[in-house]
Parts: sequence; structure tokens; C-alpha cells
Amino acid sequence: MTDCPEESLDPADWTETQETARRMVEDAFAHIGTLRDRPVWQQMPQSVRDHFETNVPMDPMPVGAVYEEFQSHVLPYAMGNTHPRFWGWYMGSGNMTGAMADFLAAIDGSNLGGGNTAAAQVDRQVVNWLKQMVEFPASASGTLTSGGSVANMVCLTVARNKMAGVDVREEGITALPKPLRFYTSDQVHSASQKALETLGLGRRALHIVPSDANLKLDIAALKKAIEDDRAAGYLPTCVIATAGTTNTGAIDEMPTIADLCERENMWFHVDGCIGALIKIAPENRSLVDGIERADSMALDPHKWLHTPFEAGCALVRDAALHFHTFELHGEYLEEKPRGVAAAEFLGDYGFELSRGFKALKIWMSIKEQGVAKFGRLIDQNIAQGSYLTQLIQENALLELVAPTSINIVCFRYRGSSLAETELKELNTEIMLRLQETGVAVPSDTTVGDRHCLRVAINNHRTKKQDLDLLVREVTRLGQDLERARHNSLASHRS
Amino acid sequence: MTDCPEESLDPADWTETQETARRMVEDAFAHIGTLRDRPVWQQMPQSVRDHFETNVPMDPMPVGAVYEEFQSHVLPYAMGNTHPRFWGWYMGSGNMTGAMADFLAAIDGSNLGGGNTAAAQVDRQVVNWLKQMVEFPASASGTLTSGGSVANMVCLTVARNKMAGVDVREEGITALPKPLRFYTSDQVHSASQKALETLGLGRRALHIVPSDANLKLDIAALKKAIEDDRAAGYLPTCVIATAGTTNTGAIDEMPTIADLCERENMWFHVDGCIGALIKIAPENRSLVDGIERADSMALDPHKWLHTPFEAGCALVRDAALHFHTFELHGEYLEEKPRGVAAAEFLGDYGFELSRGFKALKIWMSIKEQGVAKFGRLIDQNIAQGSYLTQLIQENALLELVAPTSINIVCFRYRGSSLAETELKELNTEIMLRLQETGVAVPSDTTVGDRHCLRVAINNHRTKKQDLDLLVREVTRLGQDLERARHNSLASHRS
Ligand SMILES: Cc1ncc(COP(=O)(O)O)c(C=O)c1O
Ligand SMILES: Cc1ncc(COP(=O)(O)O)c(C=O)c1O
Repeated sequence: MTDCPEESLDPADWTETQETARRMVEDAFAHIGTLRDRPVWQQMPQSVRDHFETNVPMDPMPVGAVYEEFQSHVLPYAMGNTHPRFWGWYMGSGNMTGAMADFLAAIDGSNLGGGNTAAAQVDRQVVNWLKQMVEFPASASGTLTSGGSVANMVCLTVARNKMAGVDVREEGITALPKPLRFYTSDQVHSASQKALETLGLGRRALHIVPSDANLKLDIAALKKAIEDDRAAGYLPTCVIATAGTTNTGAIDEMPTIADLCERENMWFHVDGCIGALIKIAPENRSLVDGIERADSMALDPHKWLHTPFEAGCALVRDAALHFHTFELHGEYLEEKPRGVAAAEFLGDYGFELSRGFKALKIWMSIKEQGVAKFGRLIDQNIAQGSYLTQLIQENALLELVAPTSINIVCFRYRGSSLAETELKELNTEIMLRLQETGVAVPSDTTVGDRHCLRVAINNHRTKKQDLDLLVREVTRLGQDLERARHNSLASHRS
Repeated sequence: MTDCPEESLDPADWTETQETARRMVEDAFAHIGTLRDRPVWQQMPQSVRDHFETNVPMDPMPVGAVYEEFQSHVLPYAMGNTHPRFWGWYMGSGNMTGAMADFLAAIDGSNLGGGNTAAAQVDRQVVNWLKQMVEFPASASGTLTSGGSVANMVCLTVARNKMAGVDVREEGITALPKPLRFYTSDQVHSASQKALETLGLGRRALHIVPSDANLKLDIAALKKAIEDDRAAGYLPTCVIATAGTTNTGAIDEMPTIADLCERENMWFHVDGCIGALIKIAPENRSLVDGIERADSMALDPHKWLHTPFEAGCALVRDAALHFHTFELHGEYLEEKPRGVAAAEFLGDYGFELSRGFKALKIWMSIKEQGVAKFGRLIDQNIAQGSYLTQLIQENALLELVAPTSINIVCFRYRGSSLAETELKELNTEIMLRLQETGVAVPSDTTVGDRHCLRVAINNHRTKKQDLDLLVREVTRLGQDLERARHNSLASHRS
């Protein structure tokens, strides 16, 4: 300290910083308003890559110059999920109000670990809204998380602690009366496995049941697995049902699984990261009938609500179980009758203590758009899934690789009499060329034993014309590549 | 779909939305530029509280009106940690560039689960910078997390899996050769306990060792605990040392603990959420000598780097161990030689798959300010801690309750011959009045058996004059309350 005046991180020159901030807003609107004119994605040149190899800078630089680096070196090489022709993996497209809300959340600054703040009220309200949207009872609890992985893990922690038959928080799970077993289909997302590994149960606590022809959890196989395990001394603990699998969008038979869990006294968890919000889509909501009976559910606002990353949500039917799984705070964190700490600790519902105000982006965009619109957009994506499926079925060069349930379409360029490994090579090349030319970003997967392109239309900017273009390009690339292949084989032969 | 034109979340009227965004920026600068003129915190009226009880809205409303709700109902009732006189619990104050970066991150939109993007390069660079800042080797790995709680949990998961003596990912920990034991002082943050509970080890896997007169882990007691446990058939697994405890800022004896862990073949974890970054502070860096020897370390950019929430970081010395603890992705997530997926999966270093671009706010503000400035600001807060300590020691009505190590000061209004419970009541009332009048936000805690006010000066906007004011106000309030108490006792007696 000595006697120098104090420094702070506030701008030395507010005007300059404010000017930069204004520029950012203008540029951002120009960027988002013209997405369609740009490549979905492009490869970084080596010079850009090298730019990120420098040591931590000791000295300051003007904020305007930092922003220029972002403009020249970062933004052009984004993932592309904001673009109308991005259909890779499973992501939201973001939205402008959500981005502005992230700015405002940082200006507000509140720590959502808890506290007597409006931010905490918004957080609770958003959780309540999400409960309403999936028809969970008002008495259920919930918490916003970084995403679906953590949301699943929160739910599975509650399930473990409730079902284990010992005081898990005190004693751990090293000495359980019976080994726990969780059941799920071979289409489950890896997040559930990772969660069970983290929880100390290990991969072998996950009993993987085959899926049926529609890629849904096979109920007969599930029943048999539970029966066999019970006979062998395991404790059938929980079914992890998926509402919208990552590979193909299949939705497990929720009512049947709910009944089964009731009968077997098992925990019914729904991984609804992809599909839970179909509940708000007027034309398709019946597809997810029964998820509202779950004991716990993971869903993912950063998918079909297009919240900028990150925003997931864990819901638990029995609020007291949820609370008792995580409630913990030191002597430095006592609830008070008045003042800043006169409030529930939100950190008592998950792994995190300090938490950001991610509720704001959900709150603002739901208010702005209304939930009815989000429902229509979900229907729109599902209809686009059907539309693409039809284009594929009408095209003799293409082949649907799995039934389309919702907005995920698995298909491949079939061409003429290629073996499976050749097909994988060919379709991978098609995918990479689509990505490298910036035309579209599908990803790929393997369903059964067949490799395929995978188009997940979780995108509020996609239009039918984009799917027309996709089919044209896949066909063209496939034919070109096949022709090149024949020529090369022919020249080898000659 | 039918034949209606597609809808999207993009503004129907770009101009109106852009105008609103411009207004947000102007207002935000006005807000942050005038923090000092406002109360640190204020109580929400019931009408504001009620505002957050409404059902999920079906219909849209103009974005400008949504923003007005934020302005009138949310921002005025923030936690206050952006204010120069907020010293409660332990938070950063945020900063303008960080807030703008959160906006830009959402515009970029990239999913940091991985991918061939500049965002991923920025994420790696920030982790590399943090490694440099705490003198971790370049070969170490790391991942940005939501905060310190998850950062500690990531590290302790690696420690568990490495030390357990079985293949934990496959088999779980239900059948360990020997029960694991983690050692830490009674001053440990609850995050470590919560992590061990989540990991299935249970609270009893945490051997709590007493702290010494300086609130540091008592080394003799630690040695004895390890010895006794080994004799009793436990596996001494890990010491969780704290660099800056939450209660008092005490820094455990790092070099001694490092030596001990080496000798005992134990994992050396440092919870450096508060203090690890003292490494960059020129005047105080020797306080944390030895943390660079840790096997793993949690630190928290949203504390002393004042990154807006959320931003934590887990560092692991042995990158392969880190990777092998978490690496997992389904058939829908294959790494490719080219295209968008031609990159390391960042999700392989933690619990999360989808991840936000929280690196950007750290990257931009470190570039703007330079790391030397962050170091000076840490020294400044530590000097302010000494300054406040001195004011307290010079004031006969106040009493220091714990030695001040860094920037956390524990003290109370002592007044004249009050019993412990009366002192707690009186000091709680002082704290609540400071909060309710918006003058300052300290929090409170209990050290040993003594309740006290706790002032955590993790704030780049605090000036010495703010601490002068605090001491004046605590003294005045204490005297007023004591006087009122005497009068009320006298009137009862008469
Ligand atoms: C069905 C399913 N569950 C869980 C997840 C994990 O969600 P997140 O990436 O938000 O962690 C995903 C991600 O795509 C998913 O598709
Ligand atoms: C020493 C210590 N460790 C861990 C944490 C948890 O960090 P976070 O709140 O970022 O999860 C804190 C929070 O104050 C802390 O003081």
C-alpha cells in the first residue's frame, strides 16, 4: 500500500472503454444479422494458432486493441453453431437477447450461491418455469447447472444417496448392503456413465440394456435384467430413461418405465437433455408423455431454448431429498434473519457454491419470445427432421440409417455396392468436405454397426432450403468421390 | 412446418433490439461508474419479490420492456459485490471488460466441450497462463470450471482414482483394498467435504486435523493422524492443504506438507481458491512458497482476478492421470483428422461435456491489464488487510479475533464485559445494520469459539478511506447498541 493512491481494474479512460463497448454491440449485430452469408466454419491458419502460444503478458494493452484481436483472431474461427446450417452434435444456436443478458448478468455481478437478491429470485423463478414446462409438480426442486452432464450427475447423486441403504454422506459407499445397479439402453449418453464413475459406483454399476429396432430401451430386456440382477444379489436402483437419444433422437417408453419403477421400487430418472422440452411443443408433446412422472430429470436450456452456453437444469421431485443430498455450509456461511444472507442457499442443491447469474438469459428470452414461440420452434425443427427424412427417402443415392423420431436424422450416401468400411471412409470424407468448405456442419455417428452422417436440427435459424442444399451437396460430393475412386482404381489397374 | 414461413429467435425488428442493446451499454457504464454513490445492498420490497412469483409467460413482450424490468426489479437488488465496500464471504468484484467478454463469448457461441476453434485455443492459453502464474510445469494439465468447488472436486477425483488401488472407473470404490483417508485442517472449506461425499467416500474419509494458533494445519497432529490411520489399516491418501483459508486467510505450511506427502507417498492437493494467485503478487509471493509442488490445485479466477462469475480452474501436475480420469465420449463424438472435430476434447478433463467460453473474460482482462497489475492489486488488498488490522488494534472498543495473514480480517466490537452469546448478538446486529443501511457488507464467522465480523478485502475498488469508514461505523453502532441495551436493562429493572 505505502502511500501511493490505490489502483483498480476500472478503466483509466471510461470514454475509450465505452466507445469499444459500443463498437462491440454494433459489430455483434452486424455479425449475427449476416450469418447466412458466411461459411458455417473455417479452418484456422497456422499463424492464428500460433497467436495463442504466447506467454502470459505482464504489461497492459488498450482494451480496443484486445478487442481487435478478438475480431481478427477469435470470432472468425468460431464453432459455427450460430449458423443456420450447423447441425453437428447437439447444440443450441444462441440468441441476441441471451448474449445481452450475459453482459447484464456480469454487470449485476450477484453470486447465485445464495443471498437475498433479485438475482436469486430470478433463478428460482426460472427453475419454477422449467418445472411448469415439463409438468413437474410445484413442490419439486431444481437447480440450474452448467449443462446436461452436471444436471444428470446432480440427479444421480440424489438417487444414489436415497437408494443406497446407508448414510452415504457420512459413510460413503464403500460398504453397501448390496451393490447398486442402474439400467439404461445402449443409446445412453456418456454423461450418465461419467456420472456413475465419478460417484464411485463404477462403470459396472451401469447395466446396459439393448435397444430395440427403434433405438428405444428394450422393455423385455430391461425386465429380465432387473430380475436377474435381483436374483444375483444386486439392488436394482434406478432406470435412466432417455427422452431423445443423442444418436437418433429415440424416446424411451416413458409410461411403461414409470410403471415398472413404481412396481420395482426403483428411482425413475429421465435424461431429457434433448427431448424434455418437447412438452411445450403443441404438435409433438405427446411424444414425451410420462416424463412428468420421473423422480428426477435433466434438461438443457442451452439446447432447445438456445440459451448461450452454459445452462442446464436438474429437477428433483422430492425437494427434501435433493436438499439433504447437498446441504452443507461452513460457519462462515450462516443464514441470517435479515440482510444479505436472509435467504435460502442455492448452493445447497448441487456441487457448486459460487454460481453465476445464468438464469437471466433464460428469463429474458422466455419473457421476450413467450414460451409458445419456443414450443412452435421445437415443432418446426421436428417438422424439418421429417422433411429431410423424406428428401433422403426419395433419393436413390441416399439411405436412412435409423428411423427419425424427432429432429435428428441419421443417413448416408450409399452409392453403389461399397463395403461398410468404404462407406465410412466415403461418408466421413463427405462430412469433412462440407465442414471444410463451410457449406454445412453435420457430424457423424455409428448406429448398430453402420456409420452415418448425423444431422441434428436443433437450430432456430434453419430453413427448409438449407436442408435442400444439404441433400444436393451430399449427393454431389458422394458422386464426385465415387467417380474419383473408380478412376483411381481404374488407373491402378491399367 | 406445413407451408408457413419459418420462424426464428432473431429479432423481428433488428433496429429496436440494437437500440435496446445500446441503451444497456450506456446504462451499464453509468451504473459501474457511480457504484460508490449507491448503497452496497438494499432490501427488496415485497412488491418486487412478488414480481418473481408469476407463471411462465406464453406470449411475447418487447425486448425493451424486458430490459426495463431488469432495470427496475433486478439490478437495484443485486448482491453488491461490485461495490467498493463489499467484503462479505469471498467474491470478486467483476470488471467491465469481463462483462463485455461474456457478451462476446455468447456472440461467438462456440461450445468448449472441444472442437477445432479459436475459442478452444483461447481456453488452452488461459489454462497455460494460470499454470505459469502459479509456477506449475508446462507439462501439467488443467481445466476451467464453474468455480472453486468443482475445481476441488475435479482434483480430488483424480487423486481418488490414482490412489485407490483398483480400477475405479470400471469397478467403483465399493471394494477397496483399504479405506482411503484425506487429511485437512478444521479450517477447510466445505467444498472439499462435499466433494468427498459426492465421490462416494463419505465424510468419514476426511480426517479433520486441528489447526494451530495461527489457524494453520497443525503439522505434528497431521503426522500423528497419518501414523495412527496407517496402523489402523487405512490408506493415507491425500493432504488437502489450504492456501488462504476462508475463515481467516491462513496459509498452511506448504513446503513441510509437500515433503511429508513425498515421504508418505500421498497426493498433495492445494485448495488455492483464495490464495494461490498470491504467487503473482511481488510483495507477498513468498507467503505461498511450495504450492507449486502440489499434485493438484484448485484456484478461482472469479475471486482475485475479478472475473465475473463463473470461473474456477483445476490444475493437475500429471496430465495423463487427469485425462485418464475423465476421458470418455460416445460414438457420436469421434475425433477426426480434419474439420470441426479435429481437436482435443476439452470435456475429457472434467465432468462437463458442453462448456461455455468463460476463458474469454479471463483472456481479455489479463491482456488489457497485464498480469503485473493483478499482482499489484493483490498486494494492495493484503496491505489493506494490514491497515484495517492496525486500525482495530489501535481501537480499544474493537478486538482482533484471529491473526491477519492476508486480506481477511476477523474482529469484533468488544465493548464492556459482555458474555460470548451477547457479543454474538451484538456483532450480528452491527453487521445486519451495516448491510441494511447499505453502508458496507461484511459477513461473519466463528473462529475457535468466538463469533466475529469478517472483512474479506477481495475488492479492486476498495480504498483505505472505506476501511476508515467501516471502523467508525462499527464503533458507533456498537456504542449505540450497547447504550440501548443498558437503557432497556435499566428500564426493566426500574
Ligand atoms: C441425451 C444427452 N444427455 C446429456 C448430454 C450432455 O449435455 P451437456 O453437453 O449439456 O453436458 C447430451 C449432450 O448432447 C445429450 O445429448
Ligand atoms: C478456500 C476456498 N475453497 C473453495 C471455495 C469454493 O469456491 P467457489 O465458491 O468458487 O465454488 C471457496 C469459496 O469461497 C474458498 O474460500
